[in-house]
Amino acid sequence: MTVSWRLEAADGHARAGVLSTPHGEVPTPTFMPVGTQGSVKGLSPAEVAASGARIVLGNTYHLWLRPGAETVAGLGGLHAFSRWPHAMLTDSGGFQAFSLAANCKQDDDGFEFRSHLDGRRCRLSPEEAVRVQRLLGADIAMQLDVCPPGGSPEDQVRRACRTTSAWALRCLEARRREEEQDGRRQALFAIVQGGTDPALRREHAAELAALASDRPFDGLALGGFSVGEPIEAMHEVLGEVAHALDPARPRYLMGVGTPRDLVIAITAGVDMFDCVLPTRNARNGQALTRDGKIVIKNARYKDDPLPIDPECACPACAGGFSRAYLRHLFIAGEMLVLRLLSLHNLHLYGEITREARAAIAAGELGVFQRRWLERLPARDG
Amino acid sequence: MTVSWRLEAADGHARAGVLSTPHGEVPTPTFMPVGTQGSVKGLSPAEVAASGARIVLGNTYHLWLRPGAETVAGLGGLHAFSRWPHAMLTDSGGFQAFSLAANCKQDDDGFEFRSHLDGRRCRLSPEEAVRVQRLLGADIAMQLDVCPPGGSPEDQVRRACRTTSAWALRCLEARRREEEQDGRRQALFAIVQGGTDPALRREHAAELAALASDRPFDGLALGGFSVGEPIEAMHEVLGEVAHALDPARPRYLMGVGTPRDLVIAITAGVDMFDCVLPTRNARNGQALTRDGKIVIKNARYKDDPLPIDPECACPACAGGFSRAYLRHLFIAGEMLVLRLLSLHNLHLYGEITREARAAIAAGELGVFQRRWLERLPARDG
Repeated sequence: MTVSWRLEAADGHARAGVLSTPHGEVPTPTFMPVGTQGSVKGLSPAEVAASGARIVLGNTYHLWLRPGAETVAGLGGLHAFSRWPHAMLTDSGGFQAFSLAANCKQDDDGFEFRSHLDGRRCRLSPEEAVRVQRLLGADIAMQLDVCPPGGSPEDQVRRACRTTSAWALRCLEARRREEEQDGRRQALFAIVQGGTDPALRREHAAELAALASDRPFDGLALGGFSVGEPIEAMHEVLGEVAHALDPARPRYLMGVGTPRDLVIAITAGVDMFDCVLPTRNARNGQALTRDGKIVIKNARYKDDPLPIDPECACPACAGGFSRAYLRHLFIAGEMLVLRLLSLHNLHLYGEITREARAAIAAGELGVFQRRWLERLPARDG
Repeated sequence: MTVSWRLEAADGHARAGVLSTPHGEVPTPTFMPVGTQGSVKGLSPAEVAASGARIVLGNTYHLWLRPGAETVAGLGGLHAFSRWPHAMLTDSGGFQAFSLAANCKQDDDGFEFRSHLDGRRCRLSPEEAVRVQRLLGADIAMQLDVCPPGGSPEDQVRRACRTTSAWALRCLEARRREEEQDGRRQALFAIVQGGTDPALRREHAAELAALASDRPFDGLALGGFSVGEPIEAMHEVLGEVAHALDPARPRYLMGVGTPRDLVIAITAGVDMFDCVLPTRNARNGQALTRDGKIVIKNARYKDDPLPIDPECACPACAGGFSRAYLRHLFIAGEMLVLRLLSLHNLHLYGEITREARAAIAAGELGVFQRRWLERLPARDG
């Protein structure tokens, strides 16, 4: 068994569907909390699932360097290692190699860099990305791609597309060889690049679709967004490009985004998201709400008996933890607050996707969109 | 309603009983996890309770300085503030003022020191300790006492006893006045000092018992242990002194200790304990087991698929988190491991007290004691 996706309902470009995986079904649209080092920071697997998440993302770069993909494989793979019972996706490691590692150099064959942990020299090729992700054993692996920074000149973006296509083919081939060897099937998603140029994006998507294979990509991702370009540009390109991707396969917008980004991207036809924002902002003391951010350390919350959001049913809000208490914990450096804010923020992301699904099924996407966009602040919402 | 204790069964000096409080009954012997700043570090109230704990300890010194006792009182007291539904005890703040604050000076009237947070000058008198603890609103408050370091000369220990007795009377008086004013009752425990001299200890206990009052102390604590003296000396003195304390009231051994200490002190007749050891050691990467400590970062656990303790039913062990995974999380600096180790360690302390109760009720204290002491290492168990 591998991964498939089926449409349940559509409203405009927006889609409600189900992603079937060896680790259960994932209702889409869906948000994937990020478990960089085999753990969604501070949360137990049960807590992550309680937010509504049925798929998480693991970072190949981090796990490859530590504890090592062979170690994880020896312990039964990342599912068994981290005790996450539901679906899982790993990225290829390329983005982190580029953004975290030292002295990263890209050539036609992949990335060469020094580990940010111990300086040892590493090489990540398309084949190595496939091999490592098979060892980690997530339900879905990502191809190695080249992700140019926002605002890169056109020739650089075009070159990134070309290399990404070449690597896409090499990843498909590598997967075919590995699957032939051990008989284990693993889904593989391709990544569409092309910056903020809708024509380039569509061109690259067509190029990837044309990589004929008896075992094609199981899904399509939009990479290279939220990498420094103006956010309006992303929203505009998504509106022109997302719905043009193969309607039979799940569409995954990588590394995005804010609640507002999710609402807009779902409307544009995106099915899957991942982002560190809800958990990272939690660790910085920010609670996300339908009305924008709450910076919990602010003095105004010193005596505030209300929960973060009185409308919210997350364990922090329904548990009755007051803003005053959370502020105290944050200022006192108590871990519990990072957990409570993370639970709250992930719950909000769960709410967005749950409400989106219900609205799409009911043909009320417009109501859903207005309900969220009217309350979320235009900037940074 | 206030706090009372009733005996259910005895075996030798060991006692099984029930501490009744306004926030429910607490089976004794009982261990109180420490919530220094209004949170047992990293754990939710539900998790703390799941370890079996039905009473926690809050640190008056920390909460007094931040967020402030008035702030906590304004939010309904420490129970409401921290969302802990069961019983609670606060210490007097004296020990922390002495050990944490800068320039702490003791005189007949209390402690004067500078806050370790912002350097502001503070004064903690017996009356202030009672006032602050009433604002925090725990079920049980502690008198302000003088706790000489282990190995202090006899005249210093005697002086500490005298001052502690004088402050005991002042705390009783202060409580009486406050209760008359607002009609709210709060239990207050006295603290027996006397170092490692059994005669001095008994003398001081008698002195405190003689502080006649129409509203006497609701319990008796043994302070000044685990403050640098040889551990064998503590065990010996406990064996001579604990059972000599008023049998009608609960006996609380402050700031102690290891699993071995608990087993020995329960046998000696102690009913209540608190200690940061299980949670602090967890944060240092130590899992406590019936066979001693596991230092989780050790290389030997790199590929170890077993849980910390295959016999253990705590959320970390029963949840199937392997030593290899915990080691990885610890080395990677992931918060989740501190939680899992804390849950495990508190569960072990819960097991000790649960098994002790059952053994006392069954008249099998000797079996209980042998079962634990044979497996725990003699040093540091």
